[in-house]
Amino acid sequence: MGRFFDDFTLGERAGFGAVEVRREEVIDFARRFDPQPFHLDEEAARRSPFGGLIASGWHTVALTMRLMVEALGGGESGSLGSPGADRIRWLEPVRPGDVLSVELEVRALRPSRSKPDRGLVEIEVTTLNQHRRPVMTMLALGIFRRRE
Amino acid sequence: MGRFFDDFTLGERAGFGAVEVRREEVIDFARRFDPQPFHLDEEAARRSPFGGLIASGWHTVALTMRLMVEALGGGESGSLGSPGADRIRWLEPVRPGDVLSVELEVRALRPSRSKPDRGLVEIEVTTLNQHRRPVMTMLALGIFRRRE
Repeated sequence: MGRFFDDFTLGERAGFGAVEVRREEVIDFARRFDPQPFHLDEEAARRSPFGGLIASGWHTVALTMRLMVEALGGGESGSLGSPGADRIRWLEPVRPGDVLSVELEVRALRPSRSKPDRGLVEIEVTTLNQHRRPVMTMLALGIFRRRE
Repeated sequence: MGRFFDDFTLGERAGFGAVEVRREEVIDFARRFDPQPFHLDEEAARRSPFGGLIASGWHTVALTMRLMVEALGGGESGSLGSPGADRIRWLEPVRPGDVLSVELEVRALRPSRSKPDRGLVEIEVTTLNQHRRPVMTMLALGIFRRRE
């Protein structure tokens, strides 16, 4: 799609996905980045309040990011990176075998005052599982180049 | 160390690290989760406004998380996961070869009203590079079990 700042419309929505959450990737991500027992070890997870292995919330964010980059055009887009993200909320456990999809809503479009070649896009992101239940929400901020 | 809710003190600070950001891991993370050219490809990154390869902001968060889990006690702690995170801000590019460390400040301690066996800890997190410059800040939320 290759999105630039001018291609976004206030209030527009888009949905896309899906990506399967694989057990070995849950464990690999946990080992590298979030080595808590309920992300890392099936037996320990079974004895935890979660009753079984769950993905790190940051793994859910990362998978969501991949779906967003693919949908917005990746290297063909006008993305100039991001200043941050707000209000990440993990609403339900994500488990191996779950299939995640993403819904976006454009909440604000702010042309830069100091740099007229770009603008800030605020996107409300909802990540859903295969039962269409939200497992995560966040407000993503993205800086995009303007078209000529 | 194995932190439980009762082990945190309002206003306490802690600093720890370090972890080196490796080029092959920057590219591997980007390929899996954030395939934008300035995270993925040295040549494309050189032509980008960043002038060279930079780590995905989510990679910086993930490395920060690992340092936090290790410092707070990982599997030996009373961590019961997290409801989310607020106000993530990426302040400076993180590049291959950078060495990251983390500083924490406990900003709020909220015993649960509905579940007396646990409480919410709000932690202001600052990730610094080897020049002691902040590259990221966020407010991390963690639920921890109380001691008997």
